[in-house]
Amino acid sequence: MSTAVAPKGLEGIVATNSSICWIDGDAGVLSYRGIDIHELAQRSTFEETTYLLWFGKLPTAAELADFTKKLAEARKLDPKIIELLRTVPSSGSPMEVLRTAVSMLSLYDADEKDNSHNANVRKAYRLTSQIAMIVATFDRIRKGKPVVEADPSLSHAANFLWMLNGEKPSDTAVKTFDIALILHADHELNASTFAARVIAATLADIHSAITGAIGALKGPLHGGANEATMRLLYAIDKAGEDPVAHVRKMFAEKKKISGFGHRVYHTEDPRATHLRRMSEELSKASGDTKWFDMSRQIELFVKQEKKLNANVDFYSASTYTLLGIDIDLFTPIFAVSRIAGWAAHVIEQHDDNRLIRPRAEYLGPAYPAPYVPVANR
Amino acid sequence: MSTAVAPKGLEGIVATNSSICWIDGDAGVLSYRGIDIHELAQRSTFEETTYLLWFGKLPTAAELADFTKKLAEARKLDPKIIELLRTVPSSGSPMEVLRTAVSMLSLYDADEKDNSHNANVRKAYRLTSQIAMIVATFDRIRKGKPVVEADPSLSHAANFLWMLNGEKPSDTAVKTFDIALILHADHELNASTFAARVIAATLADIHSAITGAIGALKGPLHGGANEATMRLLYAIDKAGEDPVAHVRKMFAEKKKISGFGHRVYHTEDPRATHLRRMSEELSKASGDTKWFDMSRQIELFVKQEKKLNANVDFYSASTYTLLGIDIDLFTPIFAVSRIAGWAAHVIEQHDDNRLIRPRAEYLGPAYPAPYVPVANR
Repeated sequence: MSTAVAPKGLEGIVATNSSICWIDGDAGVLSYRGIDIHELAQRSTFEETTYLLWFGKLPTAAELADFTKKLAEARKLDPKIIELLRTVPSSGSPMEVLRTAVSMLSLYDADEKDNSHNANVRKAYRLTSQIAMIVATFDRIRKGKPVVEADPSLSHAANFLWMLNGEKPSDTAVKTFDIALILHADHELNASTFAARVIAATLADIHSAITGAIGALKGPLHGGANEATMRLLYAIDKAGEDPVAHVRKMFAEKKKISGFGHRVYHTEDPRATHLRRMSEELSKASGDTKWFDMSRQIELFVKQEKKLNANVDFYSASTYTLLGIDIDLFTPIFAVSRIAGWAAHVIEQHDDNRLIRPRAEYLGPAYPAPYVPVANR
Repeated sequence: MSTAVAPKGLEGIVATNSSICWIDGDAGVLSYRGIDIHELAQRSTFEETTYLLWFGKLPTAAELADFTKKLAEARKLDPKIIELLRTVPSSGSPMEVLRTAVSMLSLYDADEKDNSHNANVRKAYRLTSQIAMIVATFDRIRKGKPVVEADPSLSHAANFLWMLNGEKPSDTAVKTFDIALILHADHELNASTFAARVIAATLADIHSAITGAIGALKGPLHGGANEATMRLLYAIDKAGEDPVAHVRKMFAEKKKISGFGHRVYHTEDPRATHLRRMSEELSKASGDTKWFDMSRQIELFVKQEKKLNANVDFYSASTYTLLGIDIDLFTPIFAVSRIAGWAAHVIEQHDDNRLIRPRAEYLGPAYPAPYVPVANR
């Protein structure tokens, strides 16, 4: 059989067709179903953007109302899932807990055995609503706080902040968080989405695919990058150091800085534009611009020294911190948004499926290597 | 950026280097670390084969004794995992339960945050032993039978059958099951292993990767095929039909027969050779050759009509049935074996990592599509 050797990490290899997301990495363009991310960030909502990702077009007013209602109605967690969140160690990372709880959801989903298009869409509503609920609920439980009931009158973004904090969020917080959700909702064949499609392509169910995607997102080369960025900012602040001097020292020690560079973008990541602006606005509104100022100094220095641009992760770190969100929730929050794209990709994969099964270049001992009996080894 | 378009499903695309498994699909050769699968099936054990997959060479007697001891010592499930197995609905599919329980294992694993080579190996021992325990223990619980304690004096194969059935298995059963475990232990970049590597390549932990792999294996195009084969045999038997007439009718209705053909093999799947022999031997020993005879008739007819060869799944169906194993445990048993290969691949991926992130060919609405305000839609 003929084979073709791909670059390491499948870099630049077109692995599938997709009608969901278009990126021009050289021009710094990201679009969902052809609509520019800047338009969506400025004018859309997470609900509308999710509709766009799943159904390929912007909804009419009636369609959007129906969609929003269905998402809100799906804000129900089986008591056994809450029991799991109470059972696991409170020291467990929220990503491990989310991965486990999402896998467990399928056991309580009436459509588990149905991989049809319509069943996948029904499961996508539930997964989207319930991932947000799991993240917020486990955070309450691990902090010894009472679990907050979902409020079906709130938007997806507002309900998450409400369930996380137990108080009605400000309009600014809701707007900021909603935009962050829009920006993170899809990104073509990023590693977690690709993992979801590889899993779905065996005709495994959407819960299997999303559970795998959450696992992939957990890795520091993917969703974990903004956590590392914030840990760096905290470390510099605690040591009272000059941010540029600190980063210069890191470069001298051949250390990498999280939140810079991207496999696909070779110019500014268009998502970073919005997160930088929101980080700055929240900083100014709070009266303490420390995190934004440090971030901006580091960004300019890294750009000058390494020609690397800040990516989506760099300013989401300070933005989320300014919203009062704990560091180890940054990656779970990524999942709260990216489920929109993951679901769109799994539905698309199942609608026109082929098993994804590449080959490996074998570099091990030559065949046939002898089976030497144990007495002679 | 330059891109290259791969065939659908990445067919024939070399996605990574690997020193673990070599397959010649045209010649029907499968080898682990260069050693032919026929040699291993006839002369090795699951423990020795797993050592070979993880460490790249056959163990000395002392190394094998140490390895076997470590695997046996890892036969411990945290009580919270057993509690989960008691909590989930007994009607839940064993694959959903396994996926959830394996994800949960990381919360009780002291090495969860350590992705070093040595920590990965330590976690691989635990995952290998505990996946088998979870499958057996959930089966006992769902049937209302008492949970059976692991027996550290038994081999991996024997302990699984002991924990599943609560009685000491026959030598024939242990030998048959051990060979089945050897045959399924690895298969290069099959879909579940590829999913595991995509997940691990974000530097996510081995539990995330294996959880995703279990999800991929769950799909009917991957691990689910032997279940479908056995359901077909049962259906034919129940209807009292002639197997060849039944399959001829299926072909006339454009239906596919599970257990035939393979993305990689274009001749006999070398694993099928052993499973056919074991199915025949167990049939004859049992005094009832019904399942083997039906399988053989179907195999010859499909080969003649469609030029398709039986694959690993076709005779594993009757072999497992003759061992008294329920249909819905066939895929979990695949995982009981394949964890050996999954772990080897995750360790190899982490040892020389690069993010796996391909591109998609965009076929959606042209950019820039307008953002039309909702009032105008």
